[in-house]
Amino acid sequence: MDHLSERYLEDFAVGQTFGSGRLRIDGERTLAFAAEFDPQPFHLDEAAARRSIFGGLTASGWHTAAVTMRLLVETELKPAGGIVGVGLDECRWPGPVRPGDELRVECEVIEVRPSKSRPEQGLIKCRRSAAISRVCDASRQKALRRWRER
Amino acid sequence: MDHLSERYLEDFAVGQTFGSGRLRIDGERTLAFAAEFDPQPFHLDEAAARRSIFGGLTASGWHTAAVTMRLLVETELKPAGGIVGVGLDECRWPGPVRPGDELRVECEVIEVRPSKSRPEQGLIKCRRSAAISRVCDASRQKALRRWRER
Repeated sequence: MDHLSERYLEDFAVGQTFGSGRLRIDGERTLAFAAEFDPQPFHLDEAAARRSIFGGLTASGWHTAAVTMRLLVETELKPAGGIVGVGLDECRWPGPVRPGDELRVECEVIEVRPSKSRPEQGLIKCRRSAAISRVCDASRQKALRRWRER
Repeated sequence: MDHLSERYLEDFAVGQTFGSGRLRIDGERTLAFAAEFDPQPFHLDEAAARRSIFGGLTASGWHTAAVTMRLLVETELKPAGGIVGVGLDECRWPGPVRPGDELRVECEVIEVRPSKSRPEQGLIKCRRSAAISRVCDASRQKALRRWRER
């Protein structure tokens, strides 16, 4: 790690934003992740996925969450000592992420303070959102429409 | 999937609990997961991890979250149509999970209702917690103590 680029508590301020690069959701990795951590038919089998609420194969929400972590680690956020997550106040998966989609993360600092229990450590709170880019796929749109007509 | 064991909205009630089996956090998978999704030194390198806030190698919080999903899928929760997560109201990682630890999940139903936007679908809210079993490791305890003495 490049220690010169690490940020300490005094280097953070509310309102700072850190944007990531893009990462494409790979179909093979999506299946492997689901097989290991979220083995449900709509993540594993194309035909079952078409009949499901999603209308087609989707990545596990935990896979997309993990990908956003990867993207966050690669931003310029870089707190000294690393990104040690104590938790999430709220997390939403507003819609499905499909193989081939590209994710990009934007992180906004909304709170900066020393830790109450460990004053030698700092705590920053961020709002993180992932933008999804999708290449339009006519056959999939048809499948989605079919599902809505049921 | 065994459709006879699937549960519909009327089969759920507040207060029901569903417990999982146990799953051991594998050291090799911990490193592979971190390399792919959370490539920070304290998840990847034993020496760097010893110098970090964790005092030793730990699993990415997203790895342990994904493992709890795996455990949840294997419980008797089994809602018809699958476990489709819309989000988390709160998530905390109260302490590190280390290779060799065993996780077990307990899930308690705290709300059961039809979806407002899609009345043909149901929504249940659960409180989910993971218990960690750890085999005591004297050398690691020493490392943790060293860290606390700094």
